[in-house]
Amino acid sequence: MIKTIEWTDAGVVMIDQKRLPNEEVYPCFSHYREIAGAIKDMTVRGAPAIGVAAAMGIALGAKAFEQEDHEVFANEFEQICREFAATRPTAVNLFWAIDQMKLAFEQAFRDRMSVAETKKRLVERALEIHRADIAANEQMGKYGAPLLPDSGVVLTHCNAGALATAGYGTALGVIRAAKEIGKNIEVYADETRPFLQGARLTCWELAKDNIGVTLITDNMSGHFMKMGRIKAVIVGADRIASNGDVANKIGTYMVAVLAKENNIPFYVAAPVSTLDPKLSSGEQIPIEDRASTEITEINGRRVAPVDIAVANPAFDVTPNKYVTAIITERGVAYPPYTESLKQFFD
Amino acid sequence: MIKTIEWTDAGVVMIDQKRLPNEEVYPCFSHYREIAGAIKDMTVRGAPAIGVAAAMGIALGAKAFEQEDHEVFANEFEQICREFAATRPTAVNLFWAIDQMKLAFEQAFRDRMSVAETKKRLVERALEIHRADIAANEQMGKYGAPLLPDSGVVLTHCNAGALATAGYGTALGVIRAAKEIGKNIEVYADETRPFLQGARLTCWELAKDNIGVTLITDNMSGHFMKMGRIKAVIVGADRIASNGDVANKIGTYMVAVLAKENNIPFYVAAPVSTLDPKLSSGEQIPIEDRASTEITEINGRRVAPVDIAVANPAFDVTPNKYVTAIITERGVAYPPYTESLKQFFD
Repeated sequence: MIKTIEWTDAGVVMIDQKRLPNEEVYPCFSHYREIAGAIKDMTVRGAPAIGVAAAMGIALGAKAFEQEDHEVFANEFEQICREFAATRPTAVNLFWAIDQMKLAFEQAFRDRMSVAETKKRLVERALEIHRADIAANEQMGKYGAPLLPDSGVVLTHCNAGALATAGYGTALGVIRAAKEIGKNIEVYADETRPFLQGARLTCWELAKDNIGVTLITDNMSGHFMKMGRIKAVIVGADRIASNGDVANKIGTYMVAVLAKENNIPFYVAAPVSTLDPKLSSGEQIPIEDRASTEITEINGRRVAPVDIAVANPAFDVTPNKYVTAIITERGVAYPPYTESLKQFFD
Repeated sequence: MIKTIEWTDAGVVMIDQKRLPNEEVYPCFSHYREIAGAIKDMTVRGAPAIGVAAAMGIALGAKAFEQEDHEVFANEFEQICREFAATRPTAVNLFWAIDQMKLAFEQAFRDRMSVAETKKRLVERALEIHRADIAANEQMGKYGAPLLPDSGVVLTHCNAGALATAGYGTALGVIRAAKEIGKNIEVYADETRPFLQGARLTCWELAKDNIGVTLITDNMSGHFMKMGRIKAVIVGADRIASNGDVANKIGTYMVAVLAKENNIPFYVAAPVSTLDPKLSSGEQIPIEDRASTEITEINGRRVAPVDIAVANPAFDVTPNKYVTAIITERGVAYPPYTESLKQFFD
């Protein structure tokens, strides 16, 4: 099993997703600011993985606190949380994980724990979030696997796999679970420009698991849908509004529209920590813009003229009308989502 | 004005489109087989440009024939034509140009021309095809410019510009003409994986002409359509069936579906040499599959694992129902195309 992120005595060990597939390296991050940096520069990415990384990062930052004064500790803790909240804006799992850590801190305070005990509690909570994410993915797999076809090609966009989570994966977790119950599924993976999560990460982890995968560029998925090659689409999510609108990696919206046009089911697999009950529609989801060089440079070499404008939104929003079902660890939601998702909110 | 391809005494001079935008070099091709190779490896690409390159290549091959025997010449000419016909399968302009050269050859034979006179006639015919392509693009611009919005963003996919033709461009020619009549248009250019014609070529030639251009990845166009940023889409074509189904660069179909979904007009600009009256529907258009390394390697470095499958269709077919109008040098065709295109067939 791929270990995306692990807590060790020396710090947080994460696979460097920027260097895959050419190099499989696991640097150890011993300061919380390094983890915040790794979230920003996408050394670790994927909404659930970002949440786990933030939780562990906050625990690591708290653990390094060397005084006994509770008020100073509380201020330091707040500051650490603020730094993680400023890393990336779209994936709500990040804010969910920060909130979980804050709740743990407050509970420790109410329990009159010492600073040392509180630090221990925070580490425990981060490890719980890590374990719970894997368990949620496995449960999503159980709920989602029956929805996939008994055989044929399933398309996925970006990487919603073990690498995007604490392990097993959301969308790829459902595919893994479908394989485990004997379904004869192979995967078409969109390469997912500009960061190439599909080419670099999804292909790498599926090949490692001996799940048949065919790499295509993002502009090919419609063609293969029209040709009858794709039986279902499954993707992850970075934030889901209470009406079922789904923010996910840029390009998801196009895949969803093409799926509907070709009468192919379009599934979203995401833990309930990806649901944002505070938002009534996807239009309220903040969309991160990233650096233009992610598009204009590949492997450090320019592929576009220097004197042009570039737009680089990292996510888009797929309106709920294109979403066949949302698979969570608490069950599968169908339209209308405003009703069906309610039961899953904390 | 960008000179995509030129006939010179030393041979055919073509801008090397594989090296743009980093290097602007104009190698001279002095043997017809080098030109066939340049078509295959996409040193020259774009349906009309391929047609012109083939015509000039055939003229160059014929010109090099050093005997006086008409039958041997005819056999050699046939062989040259066969080699060009085997370069790329989808763009019908290639086969149209070969047919034009064959007709010129046959006419020369009927006119009882000597081998030397026939060679001269073939060169003249190739130069005519070159001039006619530029004239056709300018005429398309005149017909197409009124269709574009008075101001705002027009999206294009791949490169249907001066570089894809003898000059001026089909889709980009219409945009140039719209600018010339005072429309306040800017362009969003899909980067067009895997060969990056949009990033490398469209951005380069528009920046050179001071037409505002914003580069996006292929998976972003739907997002910007949904946000209301795109007012119209215009693309070129590699082959258009008699019912108006359009084969064009892979990804065009997805753009067309998204345009329809968002009530945005989707225009195709192509000379009548792109029409294939022999085909009743786009399903009959042969789609070229290209090497997987075009996707798995960028600038010579792998971006995907080695042990996976790859699919690389170079074109797709957009069904006529998504096409708002087809702009040719003989006028604009509207649905139903089976009727409206008839008037343009030779």
